[in-house]
Amino acid sequence: MAAVGGNLKEAREAFYARLKKRHMSPLWTVLHDLVSDTPRRDMQAAIWRYADVRDYLMEAGELITAREAERRAIILENPSWPGEARITPTLYAAIQLVLPGDVAPAHRHTQSALRFVLEGEGAFTAVDGERTRMHRGDFVITPSWTWHDHGNETTEPMIWLDGLDIPLVYYMNASFAERGAADRQEVTKPEGDAPARYGSGLLPVDYKARPYATSPVFNYPYEAARAALDRLAAAGRFDPCHGIKQKYVNPATGDYAMPTIATFLQYLPKGYSTARYRSTDATVFVVVEGNGHSMVGETRFDWGPNDLFVVPTWETVTHHPAADTVFFSYSDRGVQEKLGLWREDRFGEAPA
Amino acid sequence: MAAVGGNLKEAREAFYARLKKRHMSPLWTVLHDLVSDTPRRDMQAAIWRYADVRDYLMEAGELITAREAERRAIILENPSWPGEARITPTLYAAIQLVLPGDVAPAHRHTQSALRFVLEGEGAFTAVDGERTRMHRGDFVITPSWTWHDHGNETTEPMIWLDGLDIPLVYYMNASFAERGAADRQEVTKPEGDAPARYGSGLLPVDYKARPYATSPVFNYPYEAARAALDRLAAAGRFDPCHGIKQKYVNPATGDYAMPTIATFLQYLPKGYSTARYRSTDATVFVVVEGNGHSMVGETRFDWGPNDLFVVPTWETVTHHPAADTVFFSYSDRGVQEKLGLWREDRFGEAPA
Amino acid sequence: MAAVGGNLKEAREAFYARLKKRHMSPLWTVLHDLVSDTPRRDMQAAIWRYADVRDYLMEAGELITAREAERRAIILENPSWPGEARITPTLYAAIQLVLPGDVAPAHRHTQSALRFVLEGEGAFTAVDGERTRMHRGDFVITPSWTWHDHGNETTEPMIWLDGLDIPLVYYMNASFAERGAADRQEVTKPEGDAPARYGSGLLPVDYKARPYATSPVFNYPYEAARAALDRLAAAGRFDPCHGIKQKYVNPATGDYAMPTIATFLQYLPKGYSTARYRSTDATVFVVVEGNGHSMVGETRFDWGPNDLFVVPTWETVTHHPAADTVFFSYSDRGVQEKLGLWREDRFGEAPA
Amino acid sequence: MAAVGGNLKEAREAFYARLKKRHMSPLWTVLHDLVSDTPRRDMQAAIWRYADVRDYLMEAGELITAREAERRAIILENPSWPGEARITPTLYAAIQLVLPGDVAPAHRHTQSALRFVLEGEGAFTAVDGERTRMHRGDFVITPSWTWHDHGNETTEPMIWLDGLDIPLVYYMNASFAERGAADRQEVTKPEGDAPARYGSGLLPVDYKARPYATSPVFNYPYEAARAALDRLAAAGRFDPCHGIKQKYVNPATGDYAMPTIATFLQYLPKGYSTARYRSTDATVFVVVEGNGHSMVGETRFDWGPNDLFVVPTWETVTHHPAADTVFFSYSDRGVQEKLGLWREDRFGEAPA
Repeated sequence: MAAVGGNLKEAREAFYARLKKRHMSPLWTVLHDLVSDTPRRDMQAAIWRYADVRDYLMEAGELITAREAERRAIILENPSWPGEARITPTLYAAIQLVLPGDVAPAHRHTQSALRFVLEGEGAFTAVDGERTRMHRGDFVITPSWTWHDHGNETTEPMIWLDGLDIPLVYYMNASFAERGAADRQEVTKPEGDAPARYGSGLLPVDYKARPYATSPVFNYPYEAARAALDRLAAAGRFDPCHGIKQKYVNPATGDYAMPTIATFLQYLPKGYSTARYRSTDATVFVVVEGNGHSMVGETRFDWGPNDLFVVPTWETVTHHPAADTVFFSYSDRGVQEKLGLWREDRFGEAPA
Repeated sequence: MAAVGGNLKEAREAFYARLKKRHMSPLWTVLHDLVSDTPRRDMQAAIWRYADVRDYLMEAGELITAREAERRAIILENPSWPGEARITPTLYAAIQLVLPGDVAPAHRHTQSALRFVLEGEGAFTAVDGERTRMHRGDFVITPSWTWHDHGNETTEPMIWLDGLDIPLVYYMNASFAERGAADRQEVTKPEGDAPARYGSGLLPVDYKARPYATSPVFNYPYEAARAALDRLAAAGRFDPCHGIKQKYVNPATGDYAMPTIATFLQYLPKGYSTARYRSTDATVFVVVEGNGHSMVGETRFDWGPNDLFVVPTWETVTHHPAADTVFFSYSDRGVQEKLGLWREDRFGEAPA
Repeated sequence: MAAVGGNLKEAREAFYARLKKRHMSPLWTVLHDLVSDTPRRDMQAAIWRYADVRDYLMEAGELITAREAERRAIILENPSWPGEARITPTLYAAIQLVLPGDVAPAHRHTQSALRFVLEGEGAFTAVDGERTRMHRGDFVITPSWTWHDHGNETTEPMIWLDGLDIPLVYYMNASFAERGAADRQEVTKPEGDAPARYGSGLLPVDYKARPYATSPVFNYPYEAARAALDRLAAAGRFDPCHGIKQKYVNPATGDYAMPTIATFLQYLPKGYSTARYRSTDATVFVVVEGNGHSMVGETRFDWGPNDLFVVPTWETVTHHPAADTVFFSYSDRGVQEKLGLWREDRFGEAPA
Repeated sequence: MAAVGGNLKEAREAFYARLKKRHMSPLWTVLHDLVSDTPRRDMQAAIWRYADVRDYLMEAGELITAREAERRAIILENPSWPGEARITPTLYAAIQLVLPGDVAPAHRHTQSALRFVLEGEGAFTAVDGERTRMHRGDFVITPSWTWHDHGNETTEPMIWLDGLDIPLVYYMNASFAERGAADRQEVTKPEGDAPARYGSGLLPVDYKARPYATSPVFNYPYEAARAALDRLAAAGRFDPCHGIKQKYVNPATGDYAMPTIATFLQYLPKGYSTARYRSTDATVFVVVEGNGHSMVGETRFDWGPNDLFVVPTWETVTHHPAADTVFFSYSDRGVQEKLGLWREDRFGEAPA
């Protein structure tokens, strides 16, 4: 070692400065920041009350037309990252208002989108030539690079949650988008074609799924999913951390319904407090039915219908339903599993 | 070459005889039989009229108790292979009668079984602790090595088709069977648990399918499948050879519902004559609805509800429905696909 | 029950006779034969000494030309099934002689074939436009429906084992075959192309394996496989039942190298007696190196280089090498696994 | 619409300000930034000359001990993102120096790492109880969450490229790390065990790959890979855009060798200018052999042995080798493929 003491420190600093000019830097000064022992705590838990969000949305309905806005949606931003349009590291959440007569022109993009209907009945989404009318609690997919548009030919507003992988695709820098020639794509299939063709326990005789494909079923109605939860609740095998929790799947592969966003529906009966749980996939929860509270780390969130809260990466959560409760939730668990990164901690399923 | 002419022939015969004693034989005398240019024509097309079979079954109901018979079923044997209990090279078909009060004791075996209900309402099959009540047109699976039993607590007889892989498992010599201690297994799950848990577009959050597994959904009700066919018929994209043809699948993998038996449901509208078609999977067809006729090679089969006919390997078939028609069918297509052996010939989809 | 006693027996017999005429039969009279509690014992263990087989082959070389024979091979038949050209329920074994100057014309068929070289150096097999020169111990594949031919341009005879799925394909009735226009296919690729392209730990950048495909590597040289066994033996983690046992795989899928035939290479050091083992895949063993004996059920087989023996379905086997020993073996384990039928019994790994 | 003109603009701004306080923002003001028509151009092409980097590394060897540095490596940073320790959006590159006698203590982390040896012979990496000695051109993996350490017991320095998914894991916020109790893990397996067990065309008889697993082979020696390139070059089927380009694979799955980093080896003969190409996976190229230049967009990079350059996302590249050339390269193509995001543009393979 040629230099020692203060001289060594100076020599190193000078060396680092010269490196920097050449677009290089010493690993040893940053190693432990880059490769942390556990996930960072740089994301916040947060809750958005539906009543508030709804008021803002209605005000937006006064201030901007759907045509002007293209999509009249209000982004829910994680308080840790203002201006970044993300609620978790990789995912986006927004609440969208579709007023009677609104027209959202057809477009397509590499981002995958989910819709989860919060309010209203009968507005439609069209995907790849097929329209589906939507109802509260329905989970609807507009798959990557698929033409889609929507409209509301009813007399009531519809409000839904938009969940997208916008931050992930932005980060991967793989965004492509195209705007359709017409406001609305041509309808080439009768409504209900996709669920009949792919979602009834059968598939077309020569159908082969592409690996990692989005589900060909693009509307998972709440009515059927909710009925299934009821039956499972009757069977009584509750998971200590999750109660009854089901994942939406692509029936042609058994994988998550979307390659970049894992989606779940979950039932917790009144009084069923869950055991402590954490996982590496920060998760967005929407209250479909019920009320109660959750402890996210040290923070208590009281919630009721259509409220939305987010649990940060590796933060401990417990749920305490004061009434029979249904959550819809989404995260990047599927991505993390495919990359070998997903972990959970069930704390030995000890009671909270 | 040491020997010539007649001497050579004799020398060869002597040589072959010596080989035979040592459990050897010359390839060159049998090569073209073993490795044929196209599949053999050693299997016959055949049809069984439901009215006939039903009469025999009822007579059997007089002659033998369910307890004595264990399963009161009449095997449909391909006329080419009397006494071999197979209707195609690899598959078995039988018609089973379950009278009110019958008890079929619980057992399990490596053979996979399907039931397709032809007549009656409400008798049950129990699989792995869960009962399902059966209705006409339901497709029910009793998976390999799963405890199952059935019974009829109604006041009417039930009759169903049993399809099994008995000849295949016999050929592979991989039969294991076990008889339960009690006539009936304990019921540990409420009815409808499996379809709710696995068959509603969602799966349990931590569920992972074993490769090549049988579908965890063991009852595919006709009502839902039939409604799906109606919707697909409305969409109007008919396949020239198949009309609307769907395969039953395992929602956790997208593969056929059973590893050894591929099952299908198919709709042909009145007057829709199919184009010529053949494939290497000999197929059993059951008429669920409708009437009409099929040409199987040169043979004409006129059929109506619950009639069953079998199309041999690589035999050309066309269907000619005189009314809106639904077929249930099964074959070993899934096995052949996994072994790289399956082929079809669509004859350029020329009209018959 | 209308009839009783002797009358009932007669009534039943009369009934069965009437059924038979209509291609039907009662399940209850055959159920326990069809669905046995354990696999049948209708196959024999057997051994063929190489010295014997070689003498016969050389005699065949005198009695028939390669051209006349197409393939000058002697089938090893399980003593239980004379004239059936099978050594296990699903597989075929033969020993083939290729004399200097022999020409085996190009053909293709849906049957998959393996060659395992017993004697000689440098004769070639050509597959899909590429020749590979063969050496003792090499495992060479001629995949389903691929043009192949072979020849011997050296001055010494070559003798190899042919393993095929002929009985399986015969049983599935899916045989297609075609004979080439010329004796030899055109050579379009340099020797060594396939192992370089697919077998060196890398694959072509845009390569996608078809599901259930045969390995694109069609020669697995003994030299490399043997060296790997040596290294694994040095590591010393021996399986009680198998010693060191490796399966040949398709590097593009990790599945067995062939969809219908599983192949293995196995090392047992001198004195390493294996623990009792049985499995549902009847297996053909070839002694590549070493000598010793095996107990197959109650039967003792003493063996040395190039001897071949077959272990029946579900028969207990132990091996007792008197010198360091290498076995090549093949079975239908891969097929049984895909059909959910494969089982093994390790007897708690108790010593023999 | 209640407000108009300037009033509307002001009303909107006031509205946006109120939203912001509640962690919300209007989608319509950012939609086209978030969902761009094509990938952003916010990353730069860059080249690092080995001679330069090597000088800096040697200077670092004077200024800091391996023990002090833990890993004595210099990060190559994309000029667009100073201080971010990433060379592409998702990947990290550094050059590491290991001097004779250096000890890098054992640790493990969820980040996956590759090493590609640039200079030196015989230093070792130990992974999961097994050491491998490294040689120039070897591609070595230290898989996610696997104990690893390295050392140099030779008398010459070794220099290698480190490629990691640090930015991706940082972004996904899934970093876990642990430091071993001892500097070096215990060696429990002989050198060469992994390649013999998993990398010789065979796998252990009962081995089942986990889905999305890293290759169990952790050293892919250059000697074998290079010999394969030579054979493929002899076959002469060059891709217009890639020449001969192979991907390193996991032999137990056929997928990329690492779940988060795709790695490639590529051969371009002297004078073989490639056709224009771009893809969504920004790629790091290392020159293993040869010299020449590449056009990355409008920028010309002249390169020779051990130089490293990076091609941005969706930037057009052509290569112009002045001598027979070998590139090692890595990118996140495997991640993008699994997420349905990967695209390439071959420009109709028109000449540059």
